[in-house]
Amino acid sequence: MKKLNVGVLAATGMVGQKYIHLLRDHPWFEVTLVTASPRSAGQTYGQAVQGRWHMPADIPKNVRDLMVYTMEDLDKVKACDFVFSALSGALAKQYEESYANAGIRIVSNASYHRHTEDVPMMIPEINHEHASLIDVQQKNRGWEGFIAVKPNCSLQSYMTPLYALHEAFGVKEVIITTLQAVSGAGYPGCSAFDLIDNTLPHIGGEEEKTEKEPLKIFGILKDGKVEPAQIKISAHCNRVPVIDGHSACVSVRFEKRPTREQILEAWQDFRSYPQEHSLPFAPKQPIIYRDESDRPQPRLDRDADKGMAVTVGRLRECNVFDWRFTALSHNTVRGAAGGAILEAEVLYKKGYFK
Amino acid sequence: MKKLNVGVLAATGMVGQKYIHLLRDHPWFEVTLVTASPRSAGQTYGQAVQGRWHMPADIPKNVRDLMVYTMEDLDKVKACDFVFSALSGALAKQYEESYANAGIRIVSNASYHRHTEDVPMMIPEINHEHASLIDVQQKNRGWEGFIAVKPNCSLQSYMTPLYALHEAFGVKEVIITTLQAVSGAGYPGCSAFDLIDNTLPHIGGEEEKTEKEPLKIFGILKDGKVEPAQIKISAHCNRVPVIDGHSACVSVRFEKRPTREQILEAWQDFRSYPQEHSLPFAPKQPIIYRDESDRPQPRLDRDADKGMAVTVGRLRECNVFDWRFTALSHNTVRGAAGGAILEAEVLYKKGYFK
Amino acid sequence: MKKLNVGVLAATGMVGQKYIHLLRDHPWFEVTLVTASPRSAGQTYGQAVQGRWHMPADIPKNVRDLMVYTMEDLDKVKACDFVFSALSGALAKQYEESYANAGIRIVSNASYHRHTEDVPMMIPEINHEHASLIDVQQKNRGWEGFIAVKPNCSLQSYMTPLYALHEAFGVKEVIITTLQAVSGAGYPGCSAFDLIDNTLPHIGGEEEKTEKEPLKIFGILKDGKVEPAQIKISAHCNRVPVIDGHSACVSVRFEKRPTREQILEAWQDFRSYPQEHSLPFAPKQPIIYRDESDRPQPRLDRDADKGMAVTVGRLRECNVFDWRFTALSHNTVRGAAGGAILEAEVLYKKGYFK
Amino acid sequence: MKKLNVGVLAATGMVGQKYIHLLRDHPWFEVTLVTASPRSAGQTYGQAVQGRWHMPADIPKNVRDLMVYTMEDLDKVKACDFVFSALSGALAKQYEESYANAGIRIVSNASYHRHTEDVPMMIPEINHEHASLIDVQQKNRGWEGFIAVKPNCSLQSYMTPLYALHEAFGVKEVIITTLQAVSGAGYPGCSAFDLIDNTLPHIGGEEEKTEKEPLKIFGILKDGKVEPAQIKISAHCNRVPVIDGHSACVSVRFEKRPTREQILEAWQDFRSYPQEHSLPFAPKQPIIYRDESDRPQPRLDRDADKGMAVTVGRLRECNVFDWRFTALSHNTVRGAAGGAILEAEVLYKKGYFK
Repeated sequence: MKKLNVGVLAATGMVGQKYIHLLRDHPWFEVTLVTASPRSAGQTYGQAVQGRWHMPADIPKNVRDLMVYTMEDLDKVKACDFVFSALSGALAKQYEESYANAGIRIVSNASYHRHTEDVPMMIPEINHEHASLIDVQQKNRGWEGFIAVKPNCSLQSYMTPLYALHEAFGVKEVIITTLQAVSGAGYPGCSAFDLIDNTLPHIGGEEEKTEKEPLKIFGILKDGKVEPAQIKISAHCNRVPVIDGHSACVSVRFEKRPTREQILEAWQDFRSYPQEHSLPFAPKQPIIYRDESDRPQPRLDRDADKGMAVTVGRLRECNVFDWRFTALSHNTVRGAAGGAILEAEVLYKKGYFK
Repeated sequence: MKKLNVGVLAATGMVGQKYIHLLRDHPWFEVTLVTASPRSAGQTYGQAVQGRWHMPADIPKNVRDLMVYTMEDLDKVKACDFVFSALSGALAKQYEESYANAGIRIVSNASYHRHTEDVPMMIPEINHEHASLIDVQQKNRGWEGFIAVKPNCSLQSYMTPLYALHEAFGVKEVIITTLQAVSGAGYPGCSAFDLIDNTLPHIGGEEEKTEKEPLKIFGILKDGKVEPAQIKISAHCNRVPVIDGHSACVSVRFEKRPTREQILEAWQDFRSYPQEHSLPFAPKQPIIYRDESDRPQPRLDRDADKGMAVTVGRLRECNVFDWRFTALSHNTVRGAAGGAILEAEVLYKKGYFK
Repeated sequence: MKKLNVGVLAATGMVGQKYIHLLRDHPWFEVTLVTASPRSAGQTYGQAVQGRWHMPADIPKNVRDLMVYTMEDLDKVKACDFVFSALSGALAKQYEESYANAGIRIVSNASYHRHTEDVPMMIPEINHEHASLIDVQQKNRGWEGFIAVKPNCSLQSYMTPLYALHEAFGVKEVIITTLQAVSGAGYPGCSAFDLIDNTLPHIGGEEEKTEKEPLKIFGILKDGKVEPAQIKISAHCNRVPVIDGHSACVSVRFEKRPTREQILEAWQDFRSYPQEHSLPFAPKQPIIYRDESDRPQPRLDRDADKGMAVTVGRLRECNVFDWRFTALSHNTVRGAAGGAILEAEVLYKKGYFK
Repeated sequence: MKKLNVGVLAATGMVGQKYIHLLRDHPWFEVTLVTASPRSAGQTYGQAVQGRWHMPADIPKNVRDLMVYTMEDLDKVKACDFVFSALSGALAKQYEESYANAGIRIVSNASYHRHTEDVPMMIPEINHEHASLIDVQQKNRGWEGFIAVKPNCSLQSYMTPLYALHEAFGVKEVIITTLQAVSGAGYPGCSAFDLIDNTLPHIGGEEEKTEKEPLKIFGILKDGKVEPAQIKISAHCNRVPVIDGHSACVSVRFEKRPTREQILEAWQDFRSYPQEHSLPFAPKQPIIYRDESDRPQPRLDRDADKGMAVTVGRLRECNVFDWRFTALSHNTVRGAAGGAILEAEVLYKKGYFK
């Protein structure tokens, strides 16, 4: 099979590097274009990231020697079958719409279009059906390209476990406290001075995203629109001295209180489109429940199924709501580049890259 | 003024050391007796803790040269005006009652008697009036001595801020997630292997204490008994790589929803017995509210007013309950030895050491 | 090919677990026996390590269900083609000689026999020829089995780079400072209280090993004896808050001062028995030199070539000696279980397991 | 006594804040002027550092309300009796000479003038006599003001212990490896991503300073010039995840090998100008030797004598040189602002601020 040509926009930053690292042996996608700021343009990718390549393995050889282009080299970008965008919010705002208008298909990490009505924001196991918003988007706007986005990393540790229960028992109220890893802040990101013998009780913008994005993701698609879910979510987001892996302590009230066995069974049996179609980045067991009283732990569980599974533990009754548990996922794999790659695999399978 | 002679039981462990460190220049109390296991007996205190003194300043000179006695040296203990007990649960069970029976007054860190009906468990700013349970206890049991205890460290970051609101607005439901420091586990306590690039989602027994102890502390004293408060509390307790300072992310539902101004005023104005009587260990401002979006932080705020004040921040509306905030206190000062010293000061002032 | 049956002695500890983790898909060796203390005997391995399995992937299925035996179950041990010993020093002293006498072939991590005259202590790339001490040992003692050992983990980051230069230029004097990871202390090992916002300037026994073991390893085999090398080594060993990966800052004086190019070439070209025979655990490039000014770093370089390569950087002239550099290796892979597996592969290839 | 009016140049950065924090109750000096970049000018100091005040206690009240001026407000600066400069190298180059020419007396942290021939670089206990270079400087240049500087923080942990021995036994060769705290890099300084489960083997420019600055400091003043000491120093500088406190592992060769007793006595008895004149910031015992095998440790020893004493431990024979030891000092107190304050106290006492 001929692989699709894939571009990575903003390829020299932390998220861009993660795309390139994770796509190294992808069976369907091959990185053939990298863009970055004008400062890096004209260099090879290897030169552009010299001294600031933060991945645990060397730069893939095929990417190392690619020339770096800028966002203005539209012809180069148009030659890709699709692109992953790791653009910052400001640049996403500036470029993503005109790119889509120029025929480019974009799977984006940026938060700018997450609440745009006709842009799907997907966690593939939950709302792969929202992919059809792309048809609406293209029709609405007369675009040949499109924009699809992924949600914030802070959601990903608890959204799939919650969804597996929401389907059957109806989630009404959720109070969440997250313990988030430093890689979520990019590089250099957090100061070491702030995170030795310390934690931070606040991450700018994170609580708002954690509370609002789930409503669209859990929303029902109807007549080309997403009706947001009617769930109340309250989030406390903390930064902790962990490299990778966001944890969430979750208390939930249901419409219909499930039993312990029903919950464990719902998690155990949960499968969705990515598993049914054996997508390359799909975790086999999307929700792994661990019985040990001291799991999940970031360092031990973040890499479960190559960082794409969510690990849950400590299911116990809540004195105030119905049930509570702790959930964990790898924030830069499942929660960022890996999640977007899985989303692209869904879109590919559904024919959006033809 | 002649200082009271004070004993420290289990003086060589982490909590015992903290007592000795904090009492170094106390205006009323002087450590004149230390006990430890038979292994340490017959040595000076300095010899007994050699190579395992964990305080940030050297051993106070007057204590360094004290001989270490065992729990069997009852005459030595009886010569003290009162004792601080840092005994483990098992030893507390074995000794504290017979000691009290032998006339010894005990202020204890152990959890063994926290729910014993006629034993006061005090956070002095909240329930100093429970001291009168000592009269009940002595009458019930025919003791000349007594046992008074302090609650678990995990409560102390949020109980005083909660109490300041409970008085006026009635707290109904609370969901709490704690981020707790390693010093709470004693020494050697947590393994470094577990807390580098990691957090732990569980601390044995801590959630139960965090949920149950507040009900007695907030309870109303009536006819010599404490009627427990009718509050529902749910706690998630995590261990994080911080030396000292427990944080709590708190969501609260009230009987009567206060305004933001009412809350801030209640905290600002809160004073109680320790402040009114200018007790040596009383923080001047027991609840410090900080406006900065990224406070409280363990390393920056744990030492507020010598580690005895509670620092609160991030007051904001809760999407599910009424209000939420983050609170922090020093777990081995306010939450352990310092809190017990303040409790002893209350008891002294109320005449229980005469 | 039928795999060899391999036993792991003291299989439930940190080093034992690492053997089981690393041998999971070994092409030649299969773990078919595990021993532990009587406390664990009679359980399956999975039961015995429940709640204290510290590896980043689950217990290999074939080992999980093995019954745990004790060191007294000699028949079970004799049924193995050879065993890896992760015994503590005291147990190594008690059992290893009688085991070898009973025909058991032992590759040991214990320090007890490292300086026994007829026991080879091997870093396979350096002194694989010392394997022939086994013949001497068996002849001397009338044993059918044998004991072979591996050196301490603290050496492994710098010994191979030093050896590559020693051959050609003669190493005379070395001053080393190590920054060692906590996994080297086992589990629970170091207290988190000691390693948050802190480092430790001393690791018991480590400096002595770091100074003495190299002399035997670099020694020349002559008439069945090892003549120790005439090198002066001085070591400062520090513990730092790193999970895995020992670093060493090395200053060296040579017999014959090499040029920078000669050094880099010696490292680049260095190959030995493990590479020549393509042993499964042999790193392809045993010494990796990195040009970046800020490498090697523990988290980024410890896993080079599955944790079996040594990474070197910062080669620069020394103001006092001739040259200096920083070297790093994975202490529980290259420095412990992985190094011992490579040693066993050498012994297998040389026919010692027939 | 009327206190001297003191300015702090670049007062909003990490070093500037440390000056303000440490000078809070100084008996001789009072901060009456703060300068910062034009961005901060016109605000109060409290406003200018809002959200980025990193000291462990609140801003001193008298400084909080000072207006911030820029380096162009020369009249304001001239009204000070002297100033502490926390300027970066580039700004030091731009301003310090013209300021001195304008009559301003400057005690500077910047490295720009450390090797300027007629500028004293002082560790007061070692070379307070170099203060007289100020006379040479003023004469040479026709200045009324002057520039005096302090050396790099990385030296301070081992220079005083070395000097106490150098006087009597002659230091010839030194090989040093430092483990340096993150506060040395300012704020935000090091990325947390680089210092969780990691150390860094390189700090830009630090090794060069560590090797070169001691030669001037140990130099002999002769005919108005400093003859640099003839010592060979080689340094490996590492960054470790510690907030404050630089450690150094030191191996030394002497002209005349001292005994262990001679070394301990030299350290025990060492006193100099700051102690003889009871300067406010002088540590009473400048060199503290600790017998415990695991000291000095950053978190336990950095605050010795308010962070101004150097703690030494682990004195033992070196296999290559004569002796080796580990030394530690507080890098932002003794090694930066505190050291400069002590230097200013020397200059005051010697009459340079009249």
